[in-house]
Amino acid sequence: MKRVHLLGSTGSIGQTSERVLGELSTTHRVVGLASGRGGASFLAQVARMAPEAIAIADDDGAEAAARALRDQPIRVYGGANAAAQLVEAVPAEVVLNGITGARGLAASFAAVRRGADLALANKESMVMAGPLLARAAATTGSRILPVDSEHSAIFQCLHREPLRSVRRIVLTASGGPFRTTPAAELDHVTPAQALRHPTWTMGAKITIDSATLLNKALEVVEARWLFALPADQIAAVVHPQSIVHSMVEFCDGSILAQLGVPDMAVPIRFALAYPERSVTRDSYFDLARFKVLTFEEPDLARFPGLGLGFRAARAGGTAGAVLNAANEVAVAAFLDGALPFQRIATTVAAVLDAVPHVDEPTLEQVLAADAAARAEATACCC
Amino acid sequence: MKRVHLLGSTGSIGQTSERVLGELSTTHRVVGLASGRGGASFLAQVARMAPEAIAIADDDGAEAAARALRDQPIRVYGGANAAAQLVEAVPAEVVLNGITGARGLAASFAAVRRGADLALANKESMVMAGPLLARAAATTGSRILPVDSEHSAIFQCLHREPLRSVRRIVLTASGGPFRTTPAAELDHVTPAQALRHPTWTMGAKITIDSATLLNKALEVVEARWLFALPADQIAAVVHPQSIVHSMVEFCDGSILAQLGVPDMAVPIRFALAYPERSVTRDSYFDLARFKVLTFEEPDLARFPGLGLGFRAARAGGTAGAVLNAANEVAVAAFLDGALPFQRIATTVAAVLDAVPHVDEPTLEQVLAADAAARAEATACCC
Repeated sequence: MKRVHLLGSTGSIGQTSERVLGELSTTHRVVGLASGRGGASFLAQVARMAPEAIAIADDDGAEAAARALRDQPIRVYGGANAAAQLVEAVPAEVVLNGITGARGLAASFAAVRRGADLALANKESMVMAGPLLARAAATTGSRILPVDSEHSAIFQCLHREPLRSVRRIVLTASGGPFRTTPAAELDHVTPAQALRHPTWTMGAKITIDSATLLNKALEVVEARWLFALPADQIAAVVHPQSIVHSMVEFCDGSILAQLGVPDMAVPIRFALAYPERSVTRDSYFDLARFKVLTFEEPDLARFPGLGLGFRAARAGGTAGAVLNAANEVAVAAFLDGALPFQRIATTVAAVLDAVPHVDEPTLEQVLAADAAARAEATACCC
Repeated sequence: MKRVHLLGSTGSIGQTSERVLGELSTTHRVVGLASGRGGASFLAQVARMAPEAIAIADDDGAEAAARALRDQPIRVYGGANAAAQLVEAVPAEVVLNGITGARGLAASFAAVRRGADLALANKESMVMAGPLLARAAATTGSRILPVDSEHSAIFQCLHREPLRSVRRIVLTASGGPFRTTPAAELDHVTPAQALRHPTWTMGAKITIDSATLLNKALEVVEARWLFALPADQIAAVVHPQSIVHSMVEFCDGSILAQLGVPDMAVPIRFALAYPERSVTRDSYFDLARFKVLTFEEPDLARFPGLGLGFRAARAGGTAGAVLNAANEVAVAAFLDGALPFQRIATTVAAVLDAVPHVDEPTLEQVLAADAAARAEATACCC
């Protein structure tokens, strides 16, 4: 049995992962669960999956869980670093990191340092500290298996082909809910409108990112480190149906693409079962959904957020951490009604200009850049 | 330098291969050329590629070539078996078999028996004698590398994945020039109309096969043996743009597809350079051509030829040889104006009914079935 930690278990990725792990019950066993707040839905997961240990970032939530579980042989870790502590303390072969945002970074490092495979849905880990995380993984032999649909697609298309054969990778973007919205109207977009994603069901933060195309910007930086490809070998194309999840163009004129219904269960299943492919009954080729697939150039004028991704990927160093931190603050401000939609990207751009760049940062310097970007973004947004 | 035999060098595949081999001049050298008739265009190729030996099936053509080349150190093989003799006599690492029709079978066997890699554009080799050819290749370690765009696509998508992970393969079909032609009008289709293929530039025989979907039928049988998959794990879908060249659905819900401009240079380049990928400047992802990709169910009522492929793939044994031979005769009769378009498939079906089936044939029995099918089809057509 593969021992699995599921981090961020009550979120959108966590819930889908629980469903996939249900399919994999003869080969995989959940030994650790981590949540930000805990609460009733998390305790229900604990009851269903019966892990050996749990982690809750929120101190009150951790205390409440410890009380509720006091008669059971389940260790409880509490506090901001609880998920990383859980990973350090409890052996596992796979750590699925579905924590949202920069808070997921420590657990990613804990996983690769232990030599566990890291099924990575927390793209911020790669965006902020890709080279450091990749180096740590190389030291222990840990494999980083992307759970983003786009990066899982590229990982599958690259399957055992050498990087020298790759001309470029092409990330697909749905274009989000405002793909065809005129520029003038984008100024007046509400959080409720931005949360209505046309093809994917995801968490709030990533859904807003999908509307600004900053999600794709983060994915460009993620791809840059995950696949060790320079920014000029990464492209993005809008594909509204979200059926082609990304492509790899090889130097010989061949293109491989990974396709499927837009269901995060597919990349989750792939990462958990890797290098095997596990059998599922759902999520197959459905001609009705594949009837018409279209592709178009992204509009960088209406969606300047995407361009910031290429800028950060080219800059390297702390630029990814700054991009991500500024965006987290700006999206939170937008969701609070404190920042207009189009100001998300301009805020991120201003913060990228303002925070001093470090070219080959240590983890401490990455975290300092993250903090500086948050402070700068908060100043910009308020 | 990889030594290459190019068989069928003046045909459509042969000409494109010459262009690709021009790109590969630092890694590949043509040591043998084979042609059906010889003639001026073949002798021009001989002058350009300077092979060590040549083969011409037509006796008069071979004699004329021998005279023309008498002052040069180029061996000339003549007669129906000349291409196979060339392959047997002159060592090479790769044999690209671009001969059209059943006549290409002997050279395929010669190549795999020598242990050369067989870059196979002559699908008839696999359709007629797939299990025998695969067994011969396994004995010597020869690799069979498909040059059909569909099978090259599947080969690339399957890349080092185990067969147990495959749910099914999905061959794409352009649908040919009569994709939207009403059934009643198909009775009156002329050879000139059938030769106007919407997306691919190919030889006459295969262009007619593309119009009847018997091309796809042959490819179903080819795939059945090439990838050792039963008929019920093979599907076909119509994709008029010919950009997605085929797909593999894995058991975990993922689909990999190979895409590219419809240019035979891509699969030829892949097979010649395998396991490397060689660098080309042309044939890349061109967003303008990828704007809209559509998929639809094939219409087996209007195109019964496709169903015959699944029938032959299920039957196995000599059914592929019979399917192919009957179709060769019927297509020739259609091109001669002697058989209506819709009678091609009915002729093939009648011949499949009439010729006795052998389940695990020897090569002699395959050739006997081929001859019996030709006789039966000729009787049907005249």
